[in-house]
Amino acid sequence: MTNMRVELISVGTEILLGNIVNTDAAFLSEECAKLGLACYYQSVVGDNAARLEETLLQALSRSEIVILTGGLGPTQDDITKEIACKVSGREMYLHEESRDAIRAFFEKRGIAFTDNNMKQAYIPVDSVVLKNNNGTAPGVIIPYNGKHIVLLPGPFNEMKPMFLESVVPYIRKLTSLTIFSKTVKIVSVPESKAEEMIEDIVEKQTNPTIATYAKTGEVHIRVTAAAESEEAAERLIKPVVRELKNRFGNNIYTTDENVSLEKSLVELLKAGELKCIIAEGGTNGLISYRMMSADDSQVVRAGLVTPTPKSKRRLLGVKKNSIEKYSIVSEQVAVEMVKSPEAWSKAEVILGVTDCELMEDSGMTRAYISCNTCGGITTKEMYFKGNAERVREALATQALVLMRQCVLEYISKRGL
Amino acid sequence: MTNMRVELISVGTEILLGNIVNTDAAFLSEECAKLGLACYYQSVVGDNAARLEETLLQALSRSEIVILTGGLGPTQDDITKEIACKVSGREMYLHEESRDAIRAFFEKRGIAFTDNNMKQAYIPVDSVVLKNNNGTAPGVIIPYNGKHIVLLPGPFNEMKPMFLESVVPYIRKLTSLTIFSKTVKIVSVPESKAEEMIEDIVEKQTNPTIATYAKTGEVHIRVTAAAESEEAAERLIKPVVRELKNRFGNNIYTTDENVSLEKSLVELLKAGELKCIIAEGGTNGLISYRMMSADDSQVVRAGLVTPTPKSKRRLLGVKKNSIEKYSIVSEQVAVEMVKSPEAWSKAEVILGVTDCELMEDSGMTRAYISCNTCGGITTKEMYFKGNAERVREALATQALVLMRQCVLEYISKRGL
Repeated sequence: MTNMRVELISVGTEILLGNIVNTDAAFLSEECAKLGLACYYQSVVGDNAARLEETLLQALSRSEIVILTGGLGPTQDDITKEIACKVSGREMYLHEESRDAIRAFFEKRGIAFTDNNMKQAYIPVDSVVLKNNNGTAPGVIIPYNGKHIVLLPGPFNEMKPMFLESVVPYIRKLTSLTIFSKTVKIVSVPESKAEEMIEDIVEKQTNPTIATYAKTGEVHIRVTAAAESEEAAERLIKPVVRELKNRFGNNIYTTDENVSLEKSLVELLKAGELKCIIAEGGTNGLISYRMMSADDSQVVRAGLVTPTPKSKRRLLGVKKNSIEKYSIVSEQVAVEMVKSPEAWSKAEVILGVTDCELMEDSGMTRAYISCNTCGGITTKEMYFKGNAERVREALATQALVLMRQCVLEYISKRGL
Repeated sequence: MTNMRVELISVGTEILLGNIVNTDAAFLSEECAKLGLACYYQSVVGDNAARLEETLLQALSRSEIVILTGGLGPTQDDITKEIACKVSGREMYLHEESRDAIRAFFEKRGIAFTDNNMKQAYIPVDSVVLKNNNGTAPGVIIPYNGKHIVLLPGPFNEMKPMFLESVVPYIRKLTSLTIFSKTVKIVSVPESKAEEMIEDIVEKQTNPTIATYAKTGEVHIRVTAAAESEEAAERLIKPVVRELKNRFGNNIYTTDENVSLEKSLVELLKAGELKCIIAEGGTNGLISYRMMSADDSQVVRAGLVTPTPKSKRRLLGVKKNSIEKYSIVSEQVAVEMVKSPEAWSKAEVILGVTDCELMEDSGMTRAYISCNTCGGITTKEMYFKGNAERVREALATQALVLMRQCVLEYISKRGL
């Protein structure tokens, strides 16, 4: 592994005031870890000249790469570029390409270009300009005393593509080794159990390294190797990923960092030429939202969100008698929720989630999930801990896991 | 205002690795701002003794209150309490009440209590113990050289109630003045326009102070006063809030920090004795999710998420002919989406959102929103900038704003 250290500084009073969550830092941390950089410190500082200068100087004293986000806007409050120039002893000049790009950005949107905006086209001398394809502020990399000051715009949708397109290749060139990683994403195995299952591999490995991350209802294992070339790094990773596949089998839904559980399900349904319908109670529409937002081929045909007994009866054909006899949170209701859409939809897979019920004695929340796969119905009783929002998220994930299991079984039986 | 400074240190390698987003810091920042504390710095540091000590010492050198979150767990990696003891020259003792509470926590859940867990019951001498009602690690406040080191557990659902229940009263006692604030939440007015509209008030005010926050589709104005008593602070705030109400009128949906747009809508529907149905296309279920998650009285009767032309026809009665003639993203389809649920539901209000269409030339996304209020239908064409996720969020908010306007009009006409 390389020994380069990176430090993140988020600039902006709005973060200190709690106005926004620092998603920039979470993204950059994860990307820097993937690049094999060591990140020991992150900080947040307001748009204040003295405090920003102090923070930047401290970061430069202990890290080779310092990434600052925010404070590149057109107003007088935006001072990140100015402070980076002061610290690195740089002057600024008018970068004509940036000026033209900013002007074009405004013209395209029919907005007047003001003198304020010109401020964004000034760039420190002897620095690398990073194009902004999603906003006006260009990014900048200032090489300084063998270190690197990276300035990125604060808005996530500008910062993220700029980092991936321009900063990643720059950092890759700096580190003599190329870093390559795969993320093995696992469901149906608790984190502690997963860690136990790979303890022996983790202990004997130094390159690739293996790191475990717990997500709601999922465990991600990232395998990262450093080598002279991407191919060599990939060769180092391959046997480890193969061994993980041996151990976790079908519980692995992807080895691609960019594929979410819902995305993998969309792909699975596509491969099986199956369509699905979501019938949800206690998840309030979250499963529909997650599936449809990952769906590029309309494999999800409809989401029926039914928070009341009446809507379950009217829209999903649940019987009044079943609700009265078994209660609204029951296996019987879960089964009926995924039955009647068979009649009117042409979807082969129907996923159902009942309402949630808080158990007074244990503080746990109970719900049923069910999946109808071409007529075969599987039901499961689930228990969750936590507040309402956490329960909804965990319940949605477990319902998706159930759908995945049912579809996999169905496809393998059908002999695809 | 008081002049006390607060600094936040988030402890945990998982944040540095980008495994989790730092929601603790966002929450604490906002709460500290409400308390009138000045927060100039935040930092993140891993579970490393030397780096944590350095960071804590630096924070104590420039702030009166230092809040550390994370690193109070039972494992050897968790060292926050140990470092705080080292820095403040404190020993630890077994706090029997905490030991009993931890034991009871495990027994209730039927989990074995191990020696590791005993570590969490050790507390620095001469410190304040903060009860944890949602987990095992107690929090601690260490008064030290006229300053205050606050240790809180990392998990959000443990940290948040502990902060609100125990740390807020502690800080209120420290600051000689009581802080009181109201948040005026506004829709249908862009941030720049809102700022212009209150420029004169902001300029002449020092107590209360007025701060503007932009949220997706909303503007929040927080009015904060400091006085000897809560009543006195409230008296200072009252005329300012009254003046804001004069200026923004019906565009204010609440003056309560804890009420979201969807919560205010639920209350509005309850007050008008109205029920509603959500019929969504391009928002993928997000409106159902937001409304139902705020709904404590089943005023939202159902959510029909219809991403395909067929589901719009089958579930919402949209005519095939209308889709062919006007296209799927059209005013006509928006109107039809909110018509047919009249027939089978007893909901008086039906909110509709069509699919989204990305306009190649401008890069903007277009959609229609519609609201049927007891037979009266209002439709609006909307344009949004940004990636798919941002568009969905903004579109959902604008649909809720439309529903609010329609319901307000309907209620005022009906003379409620």
